[in-house]
Amino acid sequence: MSNTPVTVLGLGAMGKALATAFLTNGHPTTVWNRTPEKADALVALGAVRADDVVAAASASELVIACIWDYASVMETLEPAADALKGRTLVNLTNGTPDQARRMAAWADKHGITYLDGGIMAVPPGIGTEQAFIVYSGAREAFDTCLPVLERLGAARFVGTDPGLAALYDVSLLSGMYGQFMGVMHALAMTSSAGVPAAEFVPLLTSWLEAMATGIPRFAEQIETGDHSQHVVSNLAMQTAGFDNLIGAAEEQGVRPVFFTALQDLMVRRTAEGYGADDLTSVVELMMTRK
Amino acid sequence: MSNTPVTVLGLGAMGKALATAFLTNGHPTTVWNRTPEKADALVALGAVRADDVVAAASASELVIACIWDYASVMETLEPAADALKGRTLVNLTNGTPDQARRMAAWADKHGITYLDGGIMAVPPGIGTEQAFIVYSGAREAFDTCLPVLERLGAARFVGTDPGLAALYDVSLLSGMYGQFMGVMHALAMTSSAGVPAAEFVPLLTSWLEAMATGIPRFAEQIETGDHSQHVVSNLAMQTAGFDNLIGAAEEQGVRPVFFTALQDLMVRRTAEGYGADDLTSVVELMMTRK
Ligand SMILES: NC(=O)c1ccc[n+]([C@@H]2O[C@H](COP(=O)([O-])OP(=O)(O)OC[C@H]3O[C@@H](n4cnc5c(N)ncnc54)[C@H](OP(=O)(O)O)[C@@H]3O)[C@@H](O)[C@H]2O)c1
Ligand SMILES: NC(=O)c1ccc[n+]([C@@H]2O[C@H](COP(=O)([O-])OP(=O)(O)OC[C@H]3O[C@@H](n4cnc5c(N)ncnc54)[C@H](OP(=O)(O)O)[C@@H]3O)[C@@H](O)[C@H]2O)c1
Repeated sequence: MSNTPVTVLGLGAMGKALATAFLTNGHPTTVWNRTPEKADALVALGAVRADDVVAAASASELVIACIWDYASVMETLEPAADALKGRTLVNLTNGTPDQARRMAAWADKHGITYLDGGIMAVPPGIGTEQAFIVYSGAREAFDTCLPVLERLGAARFVGTDPGLAALYDVSLLSGMYGQFMGVMHALAMTSSAGVPAAEFVPLLTSWLEAMATGIPRFAEQIETGDHSQHVVSNLAMQTAGFDNLIGAAEEQGVRPVFFTALQDLMVRRTAEGYGADDLTSVVELMMTRK
Repeated sequence: MSNTPVTVLGLGAMGKALATAFLTNGHPTTVWNRTPEKADALVALGAVRADDVVAAASASELVIACIWDYASVMETLEPAADALKGRTLVNLTNGTPDQARRMAAWADKHGITYLDGGIMAVPPGIGTEQAFIVYSGAREAFDTCLPVLERLGAARFVGTDPGLAALYDVSLLSGMYGQFMGVMHALAMTSSAGVPAAEFVPLLTSWLEAMATGIPRFAEQIETGDHSQHVVSNLAMQTAGFDNLIGAAEEQGVRPVFFTALQDLMVRRTAEGYGADDLTSVVELMMTRK
């Protein structure tokens, strides 16, 4: 397995980490980057620097792209479409499901086998057990390449619709950014009051972990659209209590900007007669089609 | 210890849970509620129903209030100020730090020992190991009452400033609501795409847990105001990637309302020249005084 050749296109922070993981596992690795000097350290590790994308694409059956965005991936690959024919292209660039589907259609038109992926890790995590990557698109290619892809981190195939990896990726990132908003606001509050981080952080961490146990219930409610079955804290009560959250932030000199949209949904949903529902009831106001 | 008498004022969902925890641990428990019938089930468990607040306050050295909001607590207690003199009042009603400080000042004026508390649990959690309650104000009273207070859940004294329990409480709730926003948006995304909850929920749960390991770093950065030291994903890159998060939501028919305020801060902070900072850099734009 470790003699399977791999090509990596794009050597930003993430592309470098990907190429390094292949090299340290003994894979013959060809690399290309728009600014060629970024390959220097990898060449010192044994990588072959390709002069252009056609040469890079021709060097391996498995070609991995990790560039800025889908527009730059397309700009990079277009001149190498013929060279990629019959090979497997794995695009680990961050994008939307529709962008991934368009890329898959382009690949299909040129006889290129296409896998899309979403990297759930930062560059230093690549190749460690902290990294995991979701893939979608060509199932057989995934199965064939799995031992190589696992050099990067745990690999999870989420479906043959090539847009699904991007869907999982942005959904997980959305979850993360929500958590980050809550954490940043909470820490802005305690920091503004002079509460030492060492006092508050352990409480916040265990509280968020405890609250995460409700995720399966949230999921069921959002999936079924029935938010009235397992209510322990009803929306009307939470909406009333929310005034204290906003009021305390204002007292403390912290702008409660992250919470005004949620408050607006809670107030509207309660006014519409769903005050006895669970909090997830507000999701019904977020869907533009249903 | 289990012979220490306790009075509970307010028998909503939470007050009932508090009184039940005292009763099942053998404490002589006096209860009062504006609508007296709500005491019926507790009387059946052995509680004494007081006819008015003065009688309720006179029955125990330790008086616990858990009513709708601080205004209703004040309305309830004002006529019983003399009866409360020399006793310990523990107010577990949700409010802001300033409301708690005003209540403490009122108690002080009337010779009432005051503890403020924030309940980090839902009513069914009271009396189980899942519940914890933060307290602030009169330290000695806390130490004296601790064995009784622990009937309700883990008890943590966070400072003599009576506003601190409310500060911890709203800060923890803010963290929770941030997490809930992320989770609801993520689940709205996957649900709109027909991804089964059972597929996605385990990934989301472990991803949020992994991301929570960054909380101590966030705390240090927010406490010191230096957001440039341990950057693995810089703000400029995250701001660019954020377009995909918003774009994917729009593709999917989910309104990205929870994220527009964060995006606005990210764009502004990057434009101000902090693109190489960590995400926490946006907190500087949230503080109205510093
Ligand atoms: N870093 C992370 O934490 C992380 C995590 C998960 C996913 N990702 C995703 O991984 C991808 C790469 O991120 P990164 O962190 O490696 O970014 P980066 O360090 O900023 O590198 C960007 C890369 O894109 C190349 N590039 C930009 N525009 C180009 C164009 N028009 N044509 C050809 N190449 C172009 C750059 O080439 P030059 O060197 O010539 O400028 C460079 O190799 C992004 O989609 C990102 O969202 C990153
Ligand atoms: N439930 C939770 O999950 C939870 C969690 C943490 C903290 N808390 C906090 O605990 C407190 C009580 O919540 P809850 O869940 O018990 O609410 P609830 O079930 O709605 O009960 C509200 C209670 O407040 C009383 N009340 C309202 N206005 C009053 C007034 N003007 N004078 C006297 N009594 C008045 C009600 O009396 P009547 O019966 O006469 O209407 C009832 O006893 C709130 O501050 C809440 O934020 C609740």
